Amino acid sequence: MSTYAAIELSLPEWIDAEIDFTVRYADDDARMALAIGLARRNVELGTGGPFGAAILRSDGELIAVGVNRVVPQQCSVAHAEMLAFMSAQKRIGRFRLNEDGARYLLATSAQPCAMCYGASFWAGIDELVIGARAEDVMQLSEFDEGPLPADWIGELEKRGIAVRRDVQRQPARAIFELYRSLAGTSY
Amino acid sequence: MSTYAAIELSLPEWIDAEIDFTVRYADDDARMALAIGLARRNVELGTGGPFGAAILRSDGELIAVGVNRVVPQQCSVAHAEMLAFMSAQKRIGRFRLNEDGARYLLATSAQPCAMCYGASFWAGIDELVIGARAEDVMQLSEFDEGPLPADWIGELEKRGIAVRRDVQRQPARAIFELYRSLAGTSY
Repeated sequence: MSTYAAIELSLPEWIDAEIDFTVRYADDDARMALAIGLARRNVELGTGGPFGAAILRSDGELIAVGVNRVVPQQCSVAHAEMLAFMSAQKRIGRFRLNEDGARYLLATSAQPCAMCYGASFWAGIDELVIGARAEDVMQLSEFDEGPLPADWIGELEKRGIAVRRDVQRQPARAIFELYRSLAGTSY
Repeated sequence: MSTYAAIELSLPEWIDAEIDFTVRYADDDARMALAIGLARRNVELGTGGPFGAAILRSDGELIAVGVNRVVPQQCSVAHAEMLAFMSAQKRIGRFRLNEDGARYLLATSAQPCAMCYGASFWAGIDELVIGARAEDVMQLSEFDEGPLPADWIGELEKRGIAVRRDVQRQPARAIFELYRSLAGTSY
């Protein structure tokens, strides 16, 4: 093991107590409620930034979740979507989730930033379900989303990833108001 | 610790034996030779894909390195640049490297893919030094670089990240020929 080699990222302990992996999250509203709930609890419990994400199979089985852990883990990569991708791949044992022929979905409380957007192409997902828009994030917080291709949705769809956005946009936006009211440290 | 929470990523063991962290990598050629050497050894030793990266301070001090570990670690996030960012942040203890006022540089053997490109905005680097171009990667291998903003260099420069590319482009390209000749598994 190299001196600088071992990188360990973890989700907060409350995930185990609060997230029910036996429930089926049958539709986009249920999946987005899960993602938004993760973001809210992450803010309320002070375990990271106001972002939550989940990976599910199309039948509603929950595979993995993620929350933003940038500040507590001092790692700029530790966005909610990235932790969800990595956790799901670890659980499934594949670097492309959908190579088993099932359809996989990422539900994320806010539009992926430039990094998470790029990561979405390699993770093996078929559907991307988004709550708040990038402009909501940047209007209500100091978080920067970074530059995307002009037709960022088209680029996903060209590669077989369906995009549904504005799912529960208002509750998703409200997370950033909560975050601001609690005067959290942005990353 | 959540059931699906602990994600561990590591670099191969040969890094410790082969990479000298006491050397000063004084110019772009030395830094790119380091990144290309990491990519080459990763291919030769079968420890991942044909990509290498390093984070240095502008005085040439080596902070961290990365190689592609997607297949061995079954993780689509484990690109060379991502491991270099995470290792450097762990060593320095900050999620934005350059908050100490020093200038930090990423040297990468090939143009960052869409994910690593986005990650470059958040990692706290000031300079991005690139070997092979995306078209070299895609012409010589089956690796996909993903979609970038039309003016991807301009977007970096707008945010204070200087870009120098085609540094040792031919030796950097040659890594993909080596990789193909060894019939490696692409990520």
